[in-house]
Amino acid sequence: MKQFRIPLIAIMIMSWLLCFSQATTEIKEDFKPSTLNQPGQEYPQVNSQGYARFRIYAPAADSVRVSLGLGGRGGTKLTKGEDGFWTGTTAGPLDEGFHYYNVNIDGGKFNDPGTLNFYGSVRWESGIEIPAHDQDFYALKDVPHGRVQQILFPSKSTNTSRRAFVYTPPAYDKEQKTRYPVLYLQHGWGEDETAWTNQGRANLIMDNLIAAGKIKPFIIVMTYGMTNEIKWGGIRDFKIEPFQTVLVDELIPYIDANFRTLANRENRAMAGLSMGGMETKMITMNKPDVFSYYALLSGGTYKPEDIKDKSKVKLIFLSCGSKERPDGIKSAVAELKEADFNAVAYISEGTAHEFQTWRRSLYQLAPLLFKN
Amino acid sequence: MKQFRIPLIAIMIMSWLLCFSQATTEIKEDFKPSTLNQPGQEYPQVNSQGYARFRIYAPAADSVRVSLGLGGRGGTKLTKGEDGFWTGTTAGPLDEGFHYYNVNIDGGKFNDPGTLNFYGSVRWESGIEIPAHDQDFYALKDVPHGRVQQILFPSKSTNTSRRAFVYTPPAYDKEQKTRYPVLYLQHGWGEDETAWTNQGRANLIMDNLIAAGKIKPFIIVMTYGMTNEIKWGGIRDFKIEPFQTVLVDELIPYIDANFRTLANRENRAMAGLSMGGMETKMITMNKPDVFSYYALLSGGTYKPEDIKDKSKVKLIFLSCGSKERPDGIKSAVAELKEADFNAVAYISEGTAHEFQTWRRSLYQLAPLLFKN
Repeated sequence: MKQFRIPLIAIMIMSWLLCFSQATTEIKEDFKPSTLNQPGQEYPQVNSQGYARFRIYAPAADSVRVSLGLGGRGGTKLTKGEDGFWTGTTAGPLDEGFHYYNVNIDGGKFNDPGTLNFYGSVRWESGIEIPAHDQDFYALKDVPHGRVQQILFPSKSTNTSRRAFVYTPPAYDKEQKTRYPVLYLQHGWGEDETAWTNQGRANLIMDNLIAAGKIKPFIIVMTYGMTNEIKWGGIRDFKIEPFQTVLVDELIPYIDANFRTLANRENRAMAGLSMGGMETKMITMNKPDVFSYYALLSGGTYKPEDIKDKSKVKLIFLSCGSKERPDGIKSAVAELKEADFNAVAYISEGTAHEFQTWRRSLYQLAPLLFKN
Repeated sequence: MKQFRIPLIAIMIMSWLLCFSQATTEIKEDFKPSTLNQPGQEYPQVNSQGYARFRIYAPAADSVRVSLGLGGRGGTKLTKGEDGFWTGTTAGPLDEGFHYYNVNIDGGKFNDPGTLNFYGSVRWESGIEIPAHDQDFYALKDVPHGRVQQILFPSKSTNTSRRAFVYTPPAYDKEQKTRYPVLYLQHGWGEDETAWTNQGRANLIMDNLIAAGKIKPFIIVMTYGMTNEIKWGGIRDFKIEPFQTVLVDELIPYIDANFRTLANRENRAMAGLSMGGMETKMITMNKPDVFSYYALLSGGTYKPEDIKDKSKVKLIFLSCGSKERPDGIKSAVAELKEADFNAVAYISEGTAHEFQTWRRSLYQLAPLLFKN
């Protein structure tokens, strides 16, 4: 029987070679156009493993590079074909969900003409969607749809009409006597009030949760949170007061006067992602009588001593991606629970500081809101 | 007195030289960022004469060209500075109002990273706004604002949920008993349901007209009219039935069921620009019981014999820019009036087949709607 005995080290080497060869060579050729492409555009494409492939026409260019690729490796260099098209595939699979990117053409930063644009990094960026195993919860389905309304509300403090988007649940216009709780939901740094519906698909997440009977319907209000001019690195000097005034003294009264809301603390939540989480924390601490549900999505934590009156807080929800700092979220929630807060931690598996984390966070948060 | 006599030919030459030198050299250096720039972006800029100046970073590029310039002269070539920025100014002033454009970098078509993007030519294009002498009518003012709502309506014929935008007047949510007439307003070829608010500022035109008491408030519904795939040159093969089914059999019943409309022919109008005018003409002719106000904006004309039952038509409004074919509009309206139709011609002075023509057309059309 000796001839069947293979040394352990040989098995390990063979396994490793097999693994390595698969990882480096077997890219499945089942690429399809990204769902965020402009109408009729074939590229960029994504395959079932999460690789992205780009194709851009620039016949006289000397260098074309896409900012997406493996984290920290400087993106994907495209190579020029004789037809003037530059093509290239990411060196590895990308995380599930939405990613911003841009294209460097001969040293200048442009967008991929194949994709829709999404506001992030204080510019309209290209976007690509890597199909996720759980994409069903934010898919456009044949269910009753709520509306996303653009409103222009007067703002004396900034001397202009400011824009907000308001999601109303599907039954809002039919059930003329029903009043609804409201979630004020903030975007991150460099984004704006379009982010939660365009990138986040917040309206579809809500439509699907409501159709499945998993949540009590509520209104979502999304407005621009960068009332101050914030430069890179200048976030340490950020002052919350200008935005707090717009939100608490101007937008909330406007919403309560113009929509059928339940206009009290018990029926008002505030949540924000990243910088929007920082704003949520500051405003909920400064104005404890305005909101009773607080959520920070990749946006920091609360300590028990941050909250003056525990009785005014019905929920503290803290989340982030598993590729961020999940331990910080978990330990903060443990400490809050220890101090008798209704605190919930959510970690999005396999995602980083990106919108898939925040889509999932909203999906987890929504059923916890307005329960009491 | 002989010494004061200057020959006529000398005066003509001097005048011509004066004119020519002004036209070719005196560009006023009062350039300001276009109002459609992305937040914080300094370029592109426009001056008080209507010249546009571009500035784009692409240090290693060999050629950068902007598609805008004097009509038909191939756009504006930019020249590279030592700092890697390409700059250039149009050879002459542009027409007042909104213009689409794109940037050619080494043979590839991209957008100007400085501007917001607007859907036209079946792609998201760069946009620039040349201040117009009459821009007040579409300015964002401190008046009550209506809402622009995104709805997703079920469409069996296309087996999906389709998007539309609905403008409701400022008082819509306050006056819960009032019902409103509806204008169905279509975009042009290569555009989509975002065009009339983004490029056309239809919501602001309405807000301002309502605030000034110049019109009876009405609802505007805008949806995607390119239900067929239309390729360049393929418009001759265009069939109206797919879009007609979506509009008449799916969208209108949905709007009448979900908004407080006056749901009859007398209170329904259809208008469209360019290809949307062609669609308007076909659908109003095919479905004479659905609409009673018809408007074609740079979108063709009706002949008296196109209309089977004159009693069902309350208004035919035909318009175009003075740089299009105003004589065709004027003679068609004369013929319609001769045949006892309530027909109105509007010619937008100094504009071509562009959105300034259509903003002005909506401004002229709105007060004529739903009068009877």
